Amino acid sequence: MFESAEIGNTLSREAYEREMPRLRARLIELQSQLIERRSTEVLIVLAGLAGAGRSESAHLIGELFDPRHVQVVPDLPPNDEERCRPPMWRFWRSLPPKGRIGVFFSGWYGLPVIDRINRRNDQAHFDARLEGIKRFEQMAVDEGALVIKFWFHLGRKDQRKRLEALAADEDTAWRVTKEDWRQAKSYRRIRNVAERAVRETSTGAAPWFVIEGLDRCYREIAVARTLVDEISRVLAAQDEDAAAAKARPRRTPRRAAAKRAAPPPLATLGETDVLSALDLTAHLPKDDYREQLPHWQGRLARLSREKKLSRHGIVALFEGYDAAGKGGAIRRVAEALDPRFYGIVPIAAPSDEERAHPYLWRFWRHLPAQGRMVMFDRSWYGRVLVERVDGFAPEPVWRRAYAEINEFEQELVEHEMIIAKFFMVVSAAEQLERFRAREKVAFKRYKITPDDWHNREKRGDYDAAVIEMIQRTSTELAPWTLVEAEDKHHARIKVLRTLVETIERSLDR
Amino acid sequence: MFESAEIGNTLSREAYEREMPRLRARLIELQSQLIERRSTEVLIVLAGLAGAGRSESAHLIGELFDPRHVQVVPDLPPNDEERCRPPMWRFWRSLPPKGRIGVFFSGWYGLPVIDRINRRNDQAHFDARLEGIKRFEQMAVDEGALVIKFWFHLGRKDQRKRLEALAADEDTAWRVTKEDWRQAKSYRRIRNVAERAVRETSTGAAPWFVIEGLDRCYREIAVARTLVDEISRVLAAQDEDAAAAKARPRRTPRRAAAKRAAPPPLATLGETDVLSALDLTAHLPKDDYREQLPHWQGRLARLSREKKLSRHGIVALFEGYDAAGKGGAIRRVAEALDPRFYGIVPIAAPSDEERAHPYLWRFWRHLPAQGRMVMFDRSWYGRVLVERVDGFAPEPVWRRAYAEINEFEQELVEHEMIIAKFFMVVSAAEQLERFRAREKVAFKRYKITPDDWHNREKRGDYDAAVIEMIQRTSTELAPWTLVEAEDKHHARIKVLRTLVETIERSLDR
Repeated sequence: MFESAEIGNTLSREAYEREMPRLRARLIELQSQLIERRSTEVLIVLAGLAGAGRSESAHLIGELFDPRHVQVVPDLPPNDEERCRPPMWRFWRSLPPKGRIGVFFSGWYGLPVIDRINRRNDQAHFDARLEGIKRFEQMAVDEGALVIKFWFHLGRKDQRKRLEALAADEDTAWRVTKEDWRQAKSYRRIRNVAERAVRETSTGAAPWFVIEGLDRCYREIAVARTLVDEISRVLAAQDEDAAAAKARPRRTPRRAAAKRAAPPPLATLGETDVLSALDLTAHLPKDDYREQLPHWQGRLARLSREKKLSRHGIVALFEGYDAAGKGGAIRRVAEALDPRFYGIVPIAAPSDEERAHPYLWRFWRHLPAQGRMVMFDRSWYGRVLVERVDGFAPEPVWRRAYAEINEFEQELVEHEMIIAKFFMVVSAAEQLERFRAREKVAFKRYKITPDDWHNREKRGDYDAAVIEMIQRTSTELAPWTLVEAEDKHHARIKVLRTLVETIERSLDR
Repeated sequence: MFESAEIGNTLSREAYEREMPRLRARLIELQSQLIERRSTEVLIVLAGLAGAGRSESAHLIGELFDPRHVQVVPDLPPNDEERCRPPMWRFWRSLPPKGRIGVFFSGWYGLPVIDRINRRNDQAHFDARLEGIKRFEQMAVDEGALVIKFWFHLGRKDQRKRLEALAADEDTAWRVTKEDWRQAKSYRRIRNVAERAVRETSTGAAPWFVIEGLDRCYREIAVARTLVDEISRVLAAQDEDAAAAKARPRRTPRRAAAKRAAPPPLATLGETDVLSALDLTAHLPKDDYREQLPHWQGRLARLSREKKLSRHGIVALFEGYDAAGKGGAIRRVAEALDPRFYGIVPIAAPSDEERAHPYLWRFWRHLPAQGRMVMFDRSWYGRVLVERVDGFAPEPVWRRAYAEINEFEQELVEHEMIIAKFFMVVSAAEQLERFRAREKVAFKRYKITPDDWHNREKRGDYDAAVIEMIQRTSTELAPWTLVEAEDKHHARIKVLRTLVETIERSLDR
């Protein structure tokens, strides 16, 4: 894998001078396309051996492009806000919006590789983290990003020479750290770990480019050429897509997305499904409700103050039919809690900043820190529900969302987060009654919009989407709770009880 | 000030039951207006003595409103990210967008008051911080926010009784901390400091509401009534404004803004102004440039690695005529630096999230941490330049922006930030030549837009705006540097040299 980058590749000064101006002009041109189209964000990962040219290449990238549209993400240790959330949170928050270029020093490879080098991680864990990275990159590419990963390499002796040269020069000595020398001593170990990482994560969606860092001319031309090739490739693919879309007047899936294998729709075997199996007559008499509400609220309140909880963030998400009582259920949970303990995030149309990022970005940004809870009023399931039903997301996009969502939730659970997912169900008849009641009360009128009536008409399609969603995303790590919401009292107690039991189970583990 | 909140105010249960349902219904109605209009964010500050009902009131607010549109900001100690920026940064980042309600525990009063109580701050410093707070609140209100500040109070003996009662109850004991008991012991001292804070910051824009916390019924009705009064007042004022705007077809300033005294336009006394006094023939021969560029870049690079700099963030902002060479100057600065040291923020049209916050929010969010530098390509001066000239901001709005900007920059400088402000000037003739040259080069064409031609036509108005901007905002703390940019070499070296000297001066201080 690295052999061809340990042979002392060089390029003559003349060849460099001949080629660089052309590449430079081409890159500025390509970047102006990126800025104009705002359809692609470029994620550049700079990784590699100490002294092999990461810093110089970041510098070069700043010079090749208009640096006003480039953002650099250093490889600092995570700060306290980042430490109390899943490790990928810090990269999600620093993703550039479409049209911009993000340069990541080591990026999401940094910690996993370092941990493996220092044997804080065994092979199996390392591989699992690499799998997670592959999924992240695939998701980013599917969502329109271009991922370019550079591994800067050097032969063992060359690395030593290079570090010595840097250390000898007054202007560059500061860049050679003790850590660099330490790394140079473990050359073999680092090379092995890196090779595995590069091999395992060189995918069609996001391949690695291994570049020998010995000779500046060679390295810079290699970087610039790769950038030209990759960016032109993506822009050309977009042009093709646009042309194809023009040729066929009906909405057609984007090529990149269409290529990915997605599971076919599920066949329904029996006569019943999770929705029709639900007993909507479930009912809780008012007196019982009055007795049980303080009981479960009290238990939740005490749980929220448990010491053990400080290691866990809690995510509770609420989906359901319009007027099924999501708001009321959320209030009963909120009432139980210290207002400083939780936040509520209502999900409406995405902002333009959110639209300029991969779909899940708008949810990542609201994830709770350890020891806190966030309730999502509607959630990332919008993609496989309303966006599917109303055609905002083309089929290949919402199809791949099932896997993306499962992976997202798995990532949260693996990092000690507790997830509770509620889907609240009312019959069409009860819903109609609630709509009418809302229209009569002045201050509830804002809760009922033309969208609500529109959604009612699509109930059949929506039901199908719900059934498939439950089948595909009710996992052992993050199961769905279907809530019979025909009777509000029953629904609220079921939500509270389920939440309490979910948290208790997680804390006992 | 507090006497009337130390007399044991109570309200009968019957009176409470009579009034609360009405207030509750009214608040939900008012909130639905807030959500619909999205023109006002409500900032509620909950401050007061331990045991006087802050937590309960936060809870109450969550119950009175639809909690999905309420966000609570606890009074945690600042985290890593917050500590390395000016103290107000953490509040700017947690400001709710228009349409939402933010509940701040102690908010921006927390640290100043605590510091004064513990005598970490003398009276003069305390007063200065209160002045800063007043300006912040005035700005927020001018920008459309509603600020409601509650001080929950108790008589000395009542406080002790209340804490004892809370501590005796199993469900509330956790809320009484050692710090609370400590505070109860320093009752007199805390009362004095708080009284000064409340007195000094009770302004027309953002008055305090002092509420005795002894009796729950009394306290809750007082809070709910205040909320109803304040929110109705603001909504009614907006209705009046809208009606007035309809009556007079021409754009009229918003009432709240118009009421504030703004300085009149400056009279020009002499024949010359800062722009015409500028010697645009300033020129640097190419050979000198080639010699000086590495000199100043090297000095800047070495400065950026100075230990002392780790206490300072650097803000460099670039304004100027279109095609004056801002981009080129920024590149020459960037070239000198480690890419991890700086960021570049190009300022274009605000995103919808930015529009939902006070004007300066979009700049606060990009402020550098200590030890880092951010270059703004265009800046907060847009309000008194392009927004003034093109009429995007009504006159009272851009008039008050001068003071807001000076206060903003003062706040940065007071917290060890280094500011360099560059305004780059080219003649109309040279500008025209550069426009034409850009149009000829394919990959530079994106740099020239219809806006640029439009701006050219308004050069006279723009000049006037520049002259007034320089006069009003070139302060000793943050002076403007006018850059003769007719000759690019001269301009770039002047920018680099000024930046180096500005940083050196700050480090020597």
